[in-house]
Amino acid sequence: MKQEMPNWLKQRSELTPNRTALKTKDETITFQQLFKRVQVRASNLSQLGVKQGQHVGILMRNSVAMVETIHALMSIGAVTVLLNHRLSKSELNWQIVDVEATYIIVDDEFSDNVADFHLIINEQLSAMKAASLSNAVPRHFNLDDVATIMYTSGTTGNPKGVLQTYGNHWSSAIGSVLNLGLQTEDRWLLAVPLFHISGLSILMRSVIYGIGIHLHERFDAKIVHQAIMDEGVAIISVVTTMLKQLLEELGETTYPPSFRCMLVGGGPVPKKYLIQCKEKGIPVYQSYGMTETASQVVTLTPDDSLLKLGSAGKPLFSSELKIINNGIECQPNEEGEIVVKGPTITKGYWKREEATKAAFTDGWLHTGDQGYLDAEGFLYVLDRRSDLIISGGENVYPAEIESVLLNYKGVKEAGVIGIDDEKWGQSPHAFIVTAEEISPVDLLDFCRSKLARYKVPKSFTFVDKLPRNASNKLLRRELKKIIKEQSNDKD
Amino acid sequence: MKQEMPNWLKQRSELTPNRTALKTKDETITFQQLFKRVQVRASNLSQLGVKQGQHVGILMRNSVAMVETIHALMSIGAVTVLLNHRLSKSELNWQIVDVEATYIIVDDEFSDNVADFHLIINEQLSAMKAASLSNAVPRHFNLDDVATIMYTSGTTGNPKGVLQTYGNHWSSAIGSVLNLGLQTEDRWLLAVPLFHISGLSILMRSVIYGIGIHLHERFDAKIVHQAIMDEGVAIISVVTTMLKQLLEELGETTYPPSFRCMLVGGGPVPKKYLIQCKEKGIPVYQSYGMTETASQVVTLTPDDSLLKLGSAGKPLFSSELKIINNGIECQPNEEGEIVVKGPTITKGYWKREEATKAAFTDGWLHTGDQGYLDAEGFLYVLDRRSDLIISGGENVYPAEIESVLLNYKGVKEAGVIGIDDEKWGQSPHAFIVTAEEISPVDLLDFCRSKLARYKVPKSFTFVDKLPRNASNKLLRRELKKIIKEQSNDKD
Repeated sequence: MKQEMPNWLKQRSELTPNRTALKTKDETITFQQLFKRVQVRASNLSQLGVKQGQHVGILMRNSVAMVETIHALMSIGAVTVLLNHRLSKSELNWQIVDVEATYIIVDDEFSDNVADFHLIINEQLSAMKAASLSNAVPRHFNLDDVATIMYTSGTTGNPKGVLQTYGNHWSSAIGSVLNLGLQTEDRWLLAVPLFHISGLSILMRSVIYGIGIHLHERFDAKIVHQAIMDEGVAIISVVTTMLKQLLEELGETTYPPSFRCMLVGGGPVPKKYLIQCKEKGIPVYQSYGMTETASQVVTLTPDDSLLKLGSAGKPLFSSELKIINNGIECQPNEEGEIVVKGPTITKGYWKREEATKAAFTDGWLHTGDQGYLDAEGFLYVLDRRSDLIISGGENVYPAEIESVLLNYKGVKEAGVIGIDDEKWGQSPHAFIVTAEEISPVDLLDFCRSKLARYKVPKSFTFVDKLPRNASNKLLRRELKKIIKEQSNDKD
Repeated sequence: MKQEMPNWLKQRSELTPNRTALKTKDETITFQQLFKRVQVRASNLSQLGVKQGQHVGILMRNSVAMVETIHALMSIGAVTVLLNHRLSKSELNWQIVDVEATYIIVDDEFSDNVADFHLIINEQLSAMKAASLSNAVPRHFNLDDVATIMYTSGTTGNPKGVLQTYGNHWSSAIGSVLNLGLQTEDRWLLAVPLFHISGLSILMRSVIYGIGIHLHERFDAKIVHQAIMDEGVAIISVVTTMLKQLLEELGETTYPPSFRCMLVGGGPVPKKYLIQCKEKGIPVYQSYGMTETASQVVTLTPDDSLLKLGSAGKPLFSSELKIINNGIECQPNEEGEIVVKGPTITKGYWKREEATKAAFTDGWLHTGDQGYLDAEGFLYVLDRRSDLIISGGENVYPAEIESVLLNYKGVKEAGVIGIDDEKWGQSPHAFIVTAEEISPVDLLDFCRSKLARYKVPKSFTFVDKLPRNASNKLLRRELKKIIKEQSNDKD
């Protein structure tokens, strides 16, 4: 897509200057006001040396300043690297070095997490007086240019930087609007992290659609519940654990008619919650997507949201979906790997030609996830990438945790699986074979220093050997059996 | 835009098979049913020799069969040439030869209007039994490919074929949805010709949005009024003369709340009608566009529809708008030529490299129309291309009529202008300088044989000479003065 477009926020500020762009607990900002703030920020960033084409990291909490920073970098034409502030220092610095970032813009509280780097402290940036705006004329967007990079871990090896173009974000927003519709008075509640595609995609939709965001720093079930009940929120994006908490808050009441879409992503939703939603008339839309597809690529339509419980739906209008098995397209109800195609899909991983090549066949992205289509073409996702653990909506890759465990002196082998967790859906559990005696407490401390909190194993089992197949591949499903037997023993 | 997309109707039929695609007075058809019919038609057209890449004309009245034919040609990958059935035989045949059409698909009633050509009669096509559908697998669309060609006359010379790509139609539909919004239950009433961009663009939106069309063969104020009142129509596209008639039908009542948009295009709307709309709370949206922009490119937003009466609004989200004078961008409130840019704009005229080159500067299309932007960026269109006559929403170019008049023996000079017409807004009037005595009745007959009915001068004034400037250019505004003086004399 070689198409050039006006800067989205600038265009939105010119078309509908007085509509609400952002609402937080402290302030309400129109698109025109937001654009003016972004111009100031872009001008100051330019002053500090940020230039078109540079990779610039953002390590911030959801906030108006974070929104301004993302738009400012897009105006300058820099590539925004969205960093997860829950990562450990070593994880963060690995990504920062890998992505070849020129600057990192951080909330002061996170400044110690980034070592030896060209830091721009958000609080100092916010305090700067506006430099001349003459160097802050927002650039047009070329849909083929990379707008953002987000890291995602794979089944093996180090995390990879997913390249997301302006065209990916644009096509995702358009695909979603053709499914969910659009009303001028729509308000989208954003309580998922802006550093994840689930949050960032809401920001993109806001400027493209001209609708306001109710911006929450984090998900708090009580506060989100009140916003839906009282503030005219029309749509919210959640993961399963949030849905569950919201259902508990809701109790015997129901949402007002202004609330028209509960978009659920980030892993399968237990059927009992879907049934509760149906009973309460909550318009729940399951969806399926990933960082590589710039948010949802398969979503239930309004027509089917309460009829096809458990299905993730059908592809967005510009996208295509197939199930394949050994390279052959499956019949309805036949299981296989989910592959997807379309303009929302990444052009590849930063500096990982091999991994990029391996991920695609004739333009189709191999998701590694298993599923099937029913006779009417509805997708049912059976398993995310066989070993993927989804904990509170965050993807956790066993290989990454195992690699950290193996770096601890005395650990000979390590195998990690997800176990059921009442609150987070799943959490990681580690099986360890030791070469010498080790202290579980010290091992835990070591993990905490190397891994984001949500990746640290919640429990350990020490074993003599790990189940492996003939080619020495770890058999995770055997580990799952062991856990199951243990839990049966307890019952 | 090199992007490839699934065939729109096929995708729509898979995503929302049971939604209504078309409703006529006789039948209601879902997207799935429409797709099946289109497959049959495409298969039969293939059987008859229609192939990818060929130029194939359509000369039909608004009907389900015409809709099927357009989709079938898109499925095959042929380029659809939309022919205006109101044109005279000689006008039609000029276009057919110019566009190098391989086939023309005609309603039987028009078959005599096309001379010596590979005709496919619609009625015969409809009666064909389905050939094997195996050769009717719908092609993917490449957004850069030409989907349709529509002829438009210019200020000088012969009509030119405007190339409209899939990307133009796609971007137009997307630009419109981001302005007007989208609700699953929207129904768009189509009573403008499908051979004009105003009608065709509704068809494109229908499959892209998944909303139904209420398809009328022609505009009949009583029938359209009833449809808006009783049938849940949400949106209608009209030209001024239709708006006027609808206001008369409406009388003292008002439309139901389900009716949310009266989209007015095809020339300026007299302010008195806009005021009437405002008084009755009719959501009227003035817009501005042309064949070269694949429908509206500037439209009022819902926020401003009743606040900025007389303005055509702001550009669609992906589009840009400037007023220029001698190549310099004008200040607010300064008059100049309207120039537009964006993905809805044609890549040029069929086989007219010079005309294409002349129409663009750095990607900006020169519309030839005059206007200004107010301080808030709202467009006010002052005059369509100085000599353009808009009669009942049809563009009439004086040069074309003059060229016909000059071909009549005894006519030495001819000058055509638009005069006020109570019903059609404007109608053409001819000034004639004769070399010998001629019969006005014979001249009229001659015009009728060469020109579409709406282009035939409604009246003639015979004069000794035409007002011209030093370089012998006809001064049309002097002709307008003569008419004005005559009408003042009468008062």
